[in-house]
Amino acid sequence: MAKVKKQPRPKAVTPKGFRDYFGAEVSDRAAMLSKIAGVYHRYGFDALESSAVETVEALGKFLPDVDRPNEGVFAWQDEDDAWVALRYDLTAPLARVYAQHRNDLPLPYRRYAMGPVWRNEKPGPGRYRQFYQCDADTVGAASVAADAEICAMLSDVLEDVGIPRGDYIVRVNNRKVLNGVLECMGLSDDGQRDAVLRTIDKFDKVGEAGVRELLGKGRLDASGAYIDGVGLSVEQAEPVLAFLTSKGADAAATLTKLRAAIGESLIGAEGVDELRQIADLLVAQGYGPDRIVIDPSVVRGLGYYTGPVFEAELTFEILDEKGRKRQFGSVAGGGRYDDLVKRFTGQEVPATGVSIGVDRLLAALREKGRIQSVESGPVVVTVMDRDRMADYQAMVAELRAAGIRAEVYLGNPKNFGNQLKYADKRNSPVAVIEGGDEKAQGVVQIKDLILGKQMAENATLEEWKERPSQYEVARGDLVAKVREILEQQ
Amino acid sequence: MAKVKKQPRPKAVTPKGFRDYFGAEVSDRAAMLSKIAGVYHRYGFDALESSAVETVEALGKFLPDVDRPNEGVFAWQDEDDAWVALRYDLTAPLARVYAQHRNDLPLPYRRYAMGPVWRNEKPGPGRYRQFYQCDADTVGAASVAADAEICAMLSDVLEDVGIPRGDYIVRVNNRKVLNGVLECMGLSDDGQRDAVLRTIDKFDKVGEAGVRELLGKGRLDASGAYIDGVGLSVEQAEPVLAFLTSKGADAAATLTKLRAAIGESLIGAEGVDELRQIADLLVAQGYGPDRIVIDPSVVRGLGYYTGPVFEAELTFEILDEKGRKRQFGSVAGGGRYDDLVKRFTGQEVPATGVSIGVDRLLAALREKGRIQSVESGPVVVTVMDRDRMADYQAMVAELRAAGIRAEVYLGNPKNFGNQLKYADKRNSPVAVIEGGDEKAQGVVQIKDLILGKQMAENATLEEWKERPSQYEVARGDLVAKVREILEQQ
Repeated sequence: MAKVKKQPRPKAVTPKGFRDYFGAEVSDRAAMLSKIAGVYHRYGFDALESSAVETVEALGKFLPDVDRPNEGVFAWQDEDDAWVALRYDLTAPLARVYAQHRNDLPLPYRRYAMGPVWRNEKPGPGRYRQFYQCDADTVGAASVAADAEICAMLSDVLEDVGIPRGDYIVRVNNRKVLNGVLECMGLSDDGQRDAVLRTIDKFDKVGEAGVRELLGKGRLDASGAYIDGVGLSVEQAEPVLAFLTSKGADAAATLTKLRAAIGESLIGAEGVDELRQIADLLVAQGYGPDRIVIDPSVVRGLGYYTGPVFEAELTFEILDEKGRKRQFGSVAGGGRYDDLVKRFTGQEVPATGVSIGVDRLLAALREKGRIQSVESGPVVVTVMDRDRMADYQAMVAELRAAGIRAEVYLGNPKNFGNQLKYADKRNSPVAVIEGGDEKAQGVVQIKDLILGKQMAENATLEEWKERPSQYEVARGDLVAKVREILEQQ
Repeated sequence: MAKVKKQPRPKAVTPKGFRDYFGAEVSDRAAMLSKIAGVYHRYGFDALESSAVETVEALGKFLPDVDRPNEGVFAWQDEDDAWVALRYDLTAPLARVYAQHRNDLPLPYRRYAMGPVWRNEKPGPGRYRQFYQCDADTVGAASVAADAEICAMLSDVLEDVGIPRGDYIVRVNNRKVLNGVLECMGLSDDGQRDAVLRTIDKFDKVGEAGVRELLGKGRLDASGAYIDGVGLSVEQAEPVLAFLTSKGADAAATLTKLRAAIGESLIGAEGVDELRQIADLLVAQGYGPDRIVIDPSVVRGLGYYTGPVFEAELTFEILDEKGRKRQFGSVAGGGRYDDLVKRFTGQEVPATGVSIGVDRLLAALREKGRIQSVESGPVVVTVMDRDRMADYQAMVAELRAAGIRAEVYLGNPKNFGNQLKYADKRNSPVAVIEGGDEKAQGVVQIKDLILGKQMAENATLEEWKERPSQYEVARGDLVAKVREILEQQ
C-alpha cells in the first residue's frame, strides 16, 4: 500500500485583522445596542436588518478590478460570475433596500440598523476588519426638522447609555455654509477648490494657525518636512478662517459671524438659515447648548454630505497609551446626504442619518468605570463525590429556578483544588460544597469567594476570626443563604 | 469632446438567496435571542462572538478547489492568497477559538454564541443563504452530566420564549447504542455498514416498514421508482429495527429494550448506561418525561456525533402551505462530538452542545399567535402649519420623555390626507392634530386610530355617536390623554 501523506494540522488563528470577543465584551455590547435601539424606537424608527452580502453593483462605491477585487471590500464571484461583497457600512445597504422596497415602505421611511460591517483595509492596533455600526436614518424628509431630531436623539442615546450631560457635546455644522464660503472666495479653478477643501479637513489637526499657513505659502510640519501651501493671498484665505473660527458665545452670535463669512452667497445664506432653524427647533424641544451647539469647526466628512452635519464628542479627558491627557473625542457622526437613492432610481430622495461607534462608546464607559469590565461568574457547586452528581445537579436546578446563575463543576472532580481554581477563573461569587459528612448531617458548606479573596489580600488574624467567609447551613437553606451572600457582595 | 458613456443604473436587489428583515421581524428575533441568552447565562455559559470570517483551513470541513471555492461556503483569497470564508456554523469557529485561546480559557469552557451563518447552497422557498444560529456548548467535560444539563437547559429555553410544557418534547438518543447495534449485526464490510447508516437516516421519512424493506431487498418509493435494498436477511435486519422502535412506556422500559437490541456489544452497553445516567440526572433535577424522553428514533445527524444526541420538537399541529395538518417539528438539536478540537491540537477534547433554530422558533410562535406579527407604530403628531414645526417637536419631546413612542410627520405636510395615510401605514395608535384654531384656543385634537379603524369596519350609527374616536383636550393634557388611550387599546 502507498504511504498516505499526513495532512498537517490546521492553525488555530483568526484571519489577519479579525478578532474574537469574550464574555462581558459581548454582553455589554448587546446591552448597549438594546438601549440604543430603545431610544431609536421611541423616536419612531423601525428596525431593519439587511443581508450582510450585497451585489458589488449595489454597493457602488468600491468597484473591483477583475483580478483582485480588493478595493476596500471583501468581494467574490457568485455562481453566475457576478461580483458580491460584504457590506462596508449600513448606509449603502439602506439606499439599496429603500430603492428595492420603496412601494411598500412608508414615506418618510425611518429605520435603524445595527450589526457588523467589514472593511478590507490594512489592520492596525485597535483597528479591525470587522466592527459594529449602529445607525438611524430618515429617508424622504427634506425638512431640517429631521436633522434637528436626529441631533436630539443622539443626545438622548448618549445619556441613556450612561454618558452624563456635561461629558459630551453634539456639534452641528452645514456643508452649504462651506459651499457659500468657497463661492465668495472666487477661486480660479477646481484644483484650487479641492486643495482648499483638503486643507480644511486638516483643521482638527493643525488648528487655525496651521490652516492659515497651508492656505498661503506652506508650513513646516512637526516632522520637519515642508508642506507646500495652496498659494492664496491673505485676503483670499480670510473667509475660510472666518468660517472655521466663527463659533460664538451662543447660537445667535455664531450665526451672525457665519452670515459675515459667506458674503453674498445664496447657498451660504440657505445653509446659515438651516442652522438657525435647527437651533430654534432644538431649543423648542429643550435641548440647549449644554447638549447641542452650532459649531463651524466640525469639518470631518463634510465632503460626503450635502447639508447639515453633526458629530458627538465626549469631552472628558483620558490618558492615552503614552500617559498623556487627551480628550476622548468623537463617538458618533452623521448628516444629510441627498443622492444615495438616486443612483438606483434616478429620483433624488432626501435623507439624513447618524452612525454611532458602539465599540468606542463602550471603551469610553469602561474608561470611566461606568461598566464593569469583568463579569460576575456563576455560583459553582463543587463535586465531592462523583456518584452523587444527581444531588449536585438538583442544587443548581434550585438556584437557577430562583434566578441565580449557577453550575455544577463538570471537569474531572478528582483534584478539589482545580475546582476552586476554576471558580476563581470564572470570577465566581460563591462555591457550594457537600461532601459525605455534610450529606450525612443534612448540611452544605457555602464559601463567599469575594470576601475570601479580600480577606486573603489584607485581613488581620482578628478579622479572619470575626468575619468567616465560609458558612455551614442546612441543605434546605441553600438558596436563601446564597442569595443573602450575593446581596451583600 | 468624446461622448461620455453613461453608466447604466445599478439594480436594487439582494443577491440570490439573501433577504432583508423589517421591523418586528428584527425586534422579535432580538427579544428572543436576549431571552435565550438569559437562560444560557443562568446556566453558567459565557458569551462568545467570533469573527464572521475564518481561514478555510480552520473551518476544515469544506475545502475549496482552486478555481471555484464553492463547496458549501462563501470563500475568497486574502492579500496573501490564503483562502478565507464566511463561517457556515458556530461549532467550527468554537473549535478554532478553543484551540487558539485554550491557555486563557477556563476548563471546562462553557460558551454560548448567537449570530448569522452563511451557506453557499442552492436557495429555495424559505431557505436562505444567511440565517441565525444560537448555540451553547460545553468544551472539556467528559461527563454525561454535561449532556443532561444541556437537555434541561433546552427545555427551559423553550418555556422561557413562550412554548408551554406539553407543546414540545426534548428527545434523547445515543450514537454509541447504534454502534453497538451495528457491531452485534456482524456486517461483512464497511460498504454494507454505510448502507445501513444511510437507511437508518431515512427512518423519519419512510417509517419502520420502509426501513425494513430498504434493509432487505428494496422498496418501491412514492414516485414509482424502485430503490435497491441493502440485501440483509430478515434476521440480520432485526437489531436495527429493534433499536429504532425500542421506545417504551417509560425510560426504564426503553432502556430494557435497548439492552436487548445491542446484544453483547460493549460500546452498546456503554451507550445504554449513559442514557440511564442522563435519565436519572434529569429526574433528579425535576425534568420528567413530559419534557425530556429517551427516544431511540432520533436519528438525524447521528453521523456527526460520538455519544448522546438530542432534539427538541414542537408537538402541536399546524397547517402546511397546502392546508394539510402536520406537526411543526424540530426546532433545535445537538449532541456530543469529541474530536473537533483534536484537528488543531492533536489532543482529544470532549465537547457537547446544542443549536437552536431561532427563525423556526419565531415562526412557531407567530403560528400560535404568541407574538404579534405587526408592530405598533408611533404616535404621529401631524403638521398643520409648517411654520410651527417647533410646537410639534415640543409635543413629541414631551411624549417621548414620558416613554411614549412618538414622531412628528416629516414628509411634505401639504396634503393632510397623506399624513393620516402615513399613520395608517405605520400602524400608529394615535394621531395628534393642532391647527391654527386649536392653537388659539389652547387645545389639541387626539384621534384614537385603532378604535377609529374598528368603528369604520363594523360600527352602527349609534355606536359612532356614543363612542367618539376623537377627543379635544387642553394642550397641557396631551400626554395624559394619549397615555389613557394607549392603555385602553
